[in-house]
Amino acid sequence: MTATEVLSAVRAAVSVPADLRVAVLGVGLMGADHVARLHGRVSGARVAVVSDAATDRAGRVAAGVPGCRVVTDPLAAVADPEVDAVVIASPGRFHEEQVLACIDRGIPVLCEKPLTMDADSSLAVVRAEDAHAARTGRRLVQVGFMRRFDPEYAALRELIAAGGIGEPLVVHCAHRNPAVPAGVTTESIVNDSVVHEVDVARFLLDEEIAAVTVLRPRATRHAAQGLSDPLLVLLETVGGRMVDVECFVSTGLAYEVRTEVVGEDGSAMIGLHKGMVRQHTGPGGAVRSTAVAPGFRERFGLAYDLEVQRWVDAARRGTVDGPGVWDGYAAQAVCAAGVEALRTGRRTEVRMEQR
Amino acid sequence: MTATEVLSAVRAAVSVPADLRVAVLGVGLMGADHVARLHGRVSGARVAVVSDAATDRAGRVAAGVPGCRVVTDPLAAVADPEVDAVVIASPGRFHEEQVLACIDRGIPVLCEKPLTMDADSSLAVVRAEDAHAARTGRRLVQVGFMRRFDPEYAALRELIAAGGIGEPLVVHCAHRNPAVPAGVTTESIVNDSVVHEVDVARFLLDEEIAAVTVLRPRATRHAAQGLSDPLLVLLETVGGRMVDVECFVSTGLAYEVRTEVVGEDGSAMIGLHKGMVRQHTGPGGAVRSTAVAPGFRERFGLAYDLEVQRWVDAARRGTVDGPGVWDGYAAQAVCAAGVEALRTGRRTEVRMEQR
Amino acid sequence: MTATEVLSAVRAAVSVPADLRVAVLGVGLMGADHVARLHGRVSGARVAVVSDAATDRAGRVAAGVPGCRVVTDPLAAVADPEVDAVVIASPGRFHEEQVLACIDRGIPVLCEKPLTMDADSSLAVVRAEDAHAARTGRRLVQVGFMRRFDPEYAALRELIAAGGIGEPLVVHCAHRNPAVPAGVTTESIVNDSVVHEVDVARFLLDEEIAAVTVLRPRATRHAAQGLSDPLLVLLETVGGRMVDVECFVSTGLAYEVRTEVVGEDGSAMIGLHKGMVRQHTGPGGAVRSTAVAPGFRERFGLAYDLEVQRWVDAARRGTVDGPGVWDGYAAQAVCAAGVEALRTGRRTEVRMEQR
Amino acid sequence: MTATEVLSAVRAAVSVPADLRVAVLGVGLMGADHVARLHGRVSGARVAVVSDAATDRAGRVAAGVPGCRVVTDPLAAVADPEVDAVVIASPGRFHEEQVLACIDRGIPVLCEKPLTMDADSSLAVVRAEDAHAARTGRRLVQVGFMRRFDPEYAALRELIAAGGIGEPLVVHCAHRNPAVPAGVTTESIVNDSVVHEVDVARFLLDEEIAAVTVLRPRATRHAAQGLSDPLLVLLETVGGRMVDVECFVSTGLAYEVRTEVVGEDGSAMIGLHKGMVRQHTGPGGAVRSTAVAPGFRERFGLAYDLEVQRWVDAARRGTVDGPGVWDGYAAQAVCAAGVEALRTGRRTEVRMEQR
Repeated sequence: MTATEVLSAVRAAVSVPADLRVAVLGVGLMGADHVARLHGRVSGARVAVVSDAATDRAGRVAAGVPGCRVVTDPLAAVADPEVDAVVIASPGRFHEEQVLACIDRGIPVLCEKPLTMDADSSLAVVRAEDAHAARTGRRLVQVGFMRRFDPEYAALRELIAAGGIGEPLVVHCAHRNPAVPAGVTTESIVNDSVVHEVDVARFLLDEEIAAVTVLRPRATRHAAQGLSDPLLVLLETVGGRMVDVECFVSTGLAYEVRTEVVGEDGSAMIGLHKGMVRQHTGPGGAVRSTAVAPGFRERFGLAYDLEVQRWVDAARRGTVDGPGVWDGYAAQAVCAAGVEALRTGRRTEVRMEQR
Repeated sequence: MTATEVLSAVRAAVSVPADLRVAVLGVGLMGADHVARLHGRVSGARVAVVSDAATDRAGRVAAGVPGCRVVTDPLAAVADPEVDAVVIASPGRFHEEQVLACIDRGIPVLCEKPLTMDADSSLAVVRAEDAHAARTGRRLVQVGFMRRFDPEYAALRELIAAGGIGEPLVVHCAHRNPAVPAGVTTESIVNDSVVHEVDVARFLLDEEIAAVTVLRPRATRHAAQGLSDPLLVLLETVGGRMVDVECFVSTGLAYEVRTEVVGEDGSAMIGLHKGMVRQHTGPGGAVRSTAVAPGFRERFGLAYDLEVQRWVDAARRGTVDGPGVWDGYAAQAVCAAGVEALRTGRRTEVRMEQR
Repeated sequence: MTATEVLSAVRAAVSVPADLRVAVLGVGLMGADHVARLHGRVSGARVAVVSDAATDRAGRVAAGVPGCRVVTDPLAAVADPEVDAVVIASPGRFHEEQVLACIDRGIPVLCEKPLTMDADSSLAVVRAEDAHAARTGRRLVQVGFMRRFDPEYAALRELIAAGGIGEPLVVHCAHRNPAVPAGVTTESIVNDSVVHEVDVARFLLDEEIAAVTVLRPRATRHAAQGLSDPLLVLLETVGGRMVDVECFVSTGLAYEVRTEVVGEDGSAMIGLHKGMVRQHTGPGGAVRSTAVAPGFRERFGLAYDLEVQRWVDAARRGTVDGPGVWDGYAAQAVCAAGVEALRTGRRTEVRMEQR
Repeated sequence: MTATEVLSAVRAAVSVPADLRVAVLGVGLMGADHVARLHGRVSGARVAVVSDAATDRAGRVAAGVPGCRVVTDPLAAVADPEVDAVVIASPGRFHEEQVLACIDRGIPVLCEKPLTMDADSSLAVVRAEDAHAARTGRRLVQVGFMRRFDPEYAALRELIAAGGIGEPLVVHCAHRNPAVPAGVTTESIVNDSVVHEVDVARFLLDEEIAAVTVLRPRATRHAAQGLSDPLLVLLETVGGRMVDVECFVSTGLAYEVRTEVVGEDGSAMIGLHKGMVRQHTGPGGAVRSTAVAPGFRERFGLAYDLEVQRWVDAARRGTVDGPGVWDGYAAQAVCAAGVEALRTGRRTEVRMEQR
């Protein structure tokens, strides 16, 4: 048996389509989670490269994944010939450059939100991907709105799409965090937390947001100095539907996401019932209780897994089937209006290009 | 205007049917509750007489009700010409004599369970009321199975009767108390607690119990010395339906009554959902909780009010529309079998006369 | 023996405090319900007089209550010496005159909402009762905001007052009717439906409403021509708390009232969990379900009973312990601002006198 | 360069640990699901070989998996040098021979329940694996009790183990199927359905079952001729705890699994609350509902994925961390007693060897 014969035999034995070799840019909390996910829970992909400005952190993460290399420069990682696809979990200000590099190289990319730092630059990414798609017929960019992959949100959308509650008219959202890191500002609550409800509204109602109003109820004493928390945000769609959002990021309690859609022929709510019912002593006597997830990773862990698995599957087929650059752009445009509404205290119309 | 004319005018002005004048025999916890209920929440009746071996207690209770007299001898209270109807809340060993006195006098009586202390004496009461009804066409005795008046149990029975779950096949009951007074024995758990589930089973399934088995799972460390707590009781109906009952009287937690009926075409459960949902910190993190009633008076307060109001209404019409002596007799017969089953550890058939 | 002596002797003989003799003005749906309630479920009162412009209807209602007379002129009914207290359930435009007549005569009155037709006239009633109270030390008027007597709302207020969720910050309300009668206008939705949420907000938060905004989401196809249904109403309190209200009166489904209060240290919701859980075939497969009340009488029947019982009890003691004229005035002032907000589409400040 | 050197170089170049090459024996419903799971959702393994008596079915399944071969003889599949591990989803009567072959070859095997067809042969498998473990220090066999991997059951066990409800005393289980295939007998309900509750009881209570009683309530009219459905099964543990099981396989409704554990210091229930709450028209009016899973694959899909992923992970480490042969043996011993209890109508003690 010659070496060539052996190699050929080995190839035949392997004979399965090669796993997608992924570069993960940024391995902080979210990026490291994605590495663990791609390595341990997602089929059809492996982490080939990690990149992080903090090289020691990158080294520690790579050490946990056999065959994973550290490449310090993220653009070099995108250009690496042993890389088939990219996950971007770096700080938001680097997203634009990194996504454009992926489009340039023509490889699939899953970019955590935000797509870029403002609506104009997001629109530029839309244009770049359009140009690539015009040449190749392939879209490349998926944005990390992972709630679309959560089984409950997916079921809610399916119900609406199937006409199960008639025409949807009003949506009520609650988005509650137990606490936020120091340095969070009221504007960043709009950009980082409310943005999820913006995408949920667009996803469930299947139309664009036309105007935003942001109200500031009395703040909790647990809020950091100067923070308006909770916020009450009103979204109006181009079709006249309305979405109210309570966004409260210093509840001291738990992570909670609840969405109720009220339609002409019924209503539906997610985020309320989950899991085990316990009976124990509570404040004021015995209670029957269910747990509320302590954080978004517990609440949406399965959604992240499904998001990445489906992104890998689509990437191997040369497609994108999750939220794309337009969704990233639309979210940026709405958040920009939201920040303006926050500053002025007035209803603010969303400025978006025609699709 | 003469005195007579004035009296006549006053009578015309009053001109409403006189309120039912009720004697309450026994004003311990339960009897005092009935006095408060008749006085303050029930329309069409007033407490004319109270009677209790503890005369000071009777005096205190009577003092709170304008126009209410104390009559020490309960049989004298039954015989009192100013008494139209009787509520018996005295210790169970006096019930037989007091109920028979009411039947003798031909006045309506609401008797707390047990009807009497054993099945034979209960059967004697059945015979006595039958004889009275044969002469007058009127039944007189209602037994205090108040759960039949609880809106949830009533709705469950209505659902079954309307065929809403098809033929019922299996019933699961949980009956839980936070604690019981010193002196409670395993036999008395059968007679005083399980008896409610016996009546519930008869009420919901509309047939008699044919056999009882009583099992003793490992006892809680909170149980009093020698007490088998919890118990697992199996009731079999003459039609072959089965009822399992968890009866657990030292949970340390709350008062809980839950009943699930499983039928050929669906199932229904009561006792699980109730009222306000709170979010707060619980064991192991944030929880969403509902309260469990601390005791039977909180859980069944409305049922007691409805029971007594409907008894008053029926008494004024000269009828009984709640559970009657036969129900009291059947419960006694089943509990007698239950106590025997507890002693022998064996399935025990219920011995009852034909109706 | 003089007439007075005879009367006195008769009163002594009866020896129970005389039942409160009530005149019910207006015996349409709501008034007839109050008659049935006073007659059959409330202790300590009886319906002595009914009055209605439709005399045949008044006659039919009176016929069902032994000893009840028809008095055609409502002001004559108020003035009737055999009347001790009044329930006003006539059309709203007659309330002002009837309530003032009761204050003039110095007798207790339970007036269905609205107190009067506008804020100015309500304020005049406040002044009139103030003057009476200054002379006699007694308040006389209770306004029919019966939700305050609903056990769930009462528990929610108690929880807040006890600090159980910390300082309340945001309140979410849903108020849904299956349908409304022909002739209902968008303004009347504010005046007749949203008004309940206005009182709930004031009751729960214990402060006044400072401003109102009314938004009109896309209307359901089930809404009558010209009706903006659903509405989204925002209330801001003087302390900066915010209340959002979805008011949707053509859901085609059921009557639903849900209120969630979000505080600094927890949150609480009522109106979600209730009663029996069924399992049956639903749209799209098997479901586990609880019933939603078909109408407000089913949902709030107990609250009405408790409201009237407590009003009777307080009236017999010479006091008022429910919502008073100030509450009626405040609700009118907020609704007036709401109607203006509806017309202008703008946030509208509430104009109220200092208390 | 020798063939061995080339192979070694190739392995180094590939540089990730080779995926586990799995043979799946039996590709009916369950086996085909496992193939899809290993191929598409499980990381670290690939389906190298499938085997089925129905070779056309095996061919169809293999065609969907790149690099997957069909090997007709299951024992040849076990012996295949390109196979590292085995999943057995063949009919139960073949399990014994196939599991023993895996032990003989010293490779990991995940065997669907039952481990073998009776307790004696299961004990023989226990002995064979013991002998292998004595030589190599490695256990090889995991039995397919996938509920242990369901997040709700896992949380319930964790709660109990952490002392969260005190000492567990009583367990209530409901196991309901919408329908069963023709040919199912009452004995097979015990062996195929109740067996899951047997393992759940052992898993949650962490002790063996000592005795079984099987009761036959009135059967549903939907049951096949001669089938006793529902069954009521009582399990008693060696420590005196009791488990009641309603097993009802012709509900016509949905797949439902509910387990409540009642302890000395609280209780906990799983299987009741799940996901989206809808409001729609139901029987008798509007309802608020949640879906009940139509079948076990929907209910336990995630549990199967987690089971297989964890089995793959453990196999690659050379360990077993799921339920082992002893659990398979214990379940067989309890079911044998259950079948005898079913025949005799009597409480039947479980006969098991000492561990």
